[in-house]
Amino acid sequence: MLLKRLAIIGVGLIGGSLALALKRAQVVSEVVGCGRTASELEKAVRLGVLDRYSTDPEQAVRGAELIVVATPVGAMRAIFEAIRPAVDNGAVITDAGSVKASVLADARAALGEAYPRFVGAHPIAGTEQSGVDACFADLYVDHRVILTPAEQTLPSAAAKVHIMWARTGAQVEVMDAGTHDQILAYTSHLPHMVAYSLVDCLGRAEPAEALRRFAAGGFRDITRIASSHPIMWRDIALANRDALLESLRSFSGGLEQIVHAVESGDGERLADLFSRARETRDRLAPGANAHADE
Amino acid sequence: MLLKRLAIIGVGLIGGSLALALKRAQVVSEVVGCGRTASELEKAVRLGVLDRYSTDPEQAVRGAELIVVATPVGAMRAIFEAIRPAVDNGAVITDAGSVKASVLADARAALGEAYPRFVGAHPIAGTEQSGVDACFADLYVDHRVILTPAEQTLPSAAAKVHIMWARTGAQVEVMDAGTHDQILAYTSHLPHMVAYSLVDCLGRAEPAEALRRFAAGGFRDITRIASSHPIMWRDIALANRDALLESLRSFSGGLEQIVHAVESGDGERLADLFSRARETRDRLAPGANAHADE
Repeated sequence: MLLKRLAIIGVGLIGGSLALALKRAQVVSEVVGCGRTASELEKAVRLGVLDRYSTDPEQAVRGAELIVVATPVGAMRAIFEAIRPAVDNGAVITDAGSVKASVLADARAALGEAYPRFVGAHPIAGTEQSGVDACFADLYVDHRVILTPAEQTLPSAAAKVHIMWARTGAQVEVMDAGTHDQILAYTSHLPHMVAYSLVDCLGRAEPAEALRRFAAGGFRDITRIASSHPIMWRDIALANRDALLESLRSFSGGLEQIVHAVESGDGERLADLFSRARETRDRLAPGANAHADE
Repeated sequence: MLLKRLAIIGVGLIGGSLALALKRAQVVSEVVGCGRTASELEKAVRLGVLDRYSTDPEQAVRGAELIVVATPVGAMRAIFEAIRPAVDNGAVITDAGSVKASVLADARAALGEAYPRFVGAHPIAGTEQSGVDACFADLYVDHRVILTPAEQTLPSAAAKVHIMWARTGAQVEVMDAGTHDQILAYTSHLPHMVAYSLVDCLGRAEPAEALRRFAAGGFRDITRIASSHPIMWRDIALANRDALLESLRSFSGGLEQIVHAVESGDGERLADLFSRARETRDRLAPGANAHADE
């Protein structure tokens, strides 16, 4: 595959790292970027992430064979509407959002006759860093990318996006959007809500200064993801509302069991719960017990 | 300081590593261990952690200048009662439990006239590994050890325990038991309950096989502490009941705010909550954003 022109809308960590990875793999001749802040896009050109840019989505996608929308999911509908008049007849459109059913619905409503050439995608990679400064070509190596083609999706479009991600070093999987959203609600979206909430709880507790001094160690790991981008996560929480609420309710119900056991001094129940969780954890994420703890 | 004889009751990661650290620093001539399982104690002798052992606490502490009780906190009261008749007149007794007020109360009730020579201590170190196999002499280097002397505690006893921990490379701090329990409830005990609960929630969710495959990455960090010892954590949860319940309720209340905001589609509220949490997190645990995430 050689892409003459790739357009990336949203040149942050995800979009920018994709550009770097594809340039390194020599699968793209020209990368055109689009964003709201010209100074950031200029920086992206200086860093070799982009060849040129426009702050106008319609301008940016004109003549592109492949268009990647890598903005927070809440911004995608308006972008799909903005680019629709300028999308080339054969151009394939894809995204990099962490929620898929809502993005497919937005694409279907906004892209019209181009919708069969839209392929939902979610690269499961990133850091708490955001912005073009954080980009690196290796971000996707050995990370999973999930494609969620719809019934109407053209196989040739899905194949093009599949190959693009494979060339970044990622492992590409295909599933339906609903399954993706259910899985990610539990493995990623719920843990983020929990981490945000845990940090906020500590931020409110007293004595504040002493808590700050003792909040390192285990706390650092468990709350690392609470440094993630607030707008991105606002959009994810709203876009994956139903699956996220289901997971939040399941989690709260489980935590309530711990609260009741502590209240009633039910040590047997606590030991059972903790043993079961330890077994589950060792099954879900084996061989990762090397760090310090308290 | 040179200790002729140190007795350690509970030769697991915490007690065993203390023995190794003190031997390396050449501050102890003889370490006598005590536990319930003779084969484990024999292994500790083979590994050079102990010089000799007894499965009888009374036997083990006889003639020891310093006695360290490093069992789960729920077992300490019975041990204090068992060793009381054999504690030498000048011997100092200390513990390594993660809760302090309840341990002080147990010591006061069980040790009688030896209580002024008891010094509550909590080394904030450990891994998810447990048992004598996991011991290493460096465990406490640059870790905090909190001493919680009571009003009745003899200054000379507190000084002895202070020096012992300082010789392991630890940073020793002194505070009252109530403050310790409040701080640890938020920085350690609550995060453990949350991690156990999060893992258990994922273990119950469907589709199980797909969830298992996608549970790595961010999940691995945030749930690492859920591999900790269930009995140790049962005891901590019960012993620090009041402070832990306060922290659990504060956390649940905060999470409920996220649930309500997701339910009602209140993006502004979510963005505010996530931004505040990110700021708090960067304040509480700065410079720890280097790992991969989703």
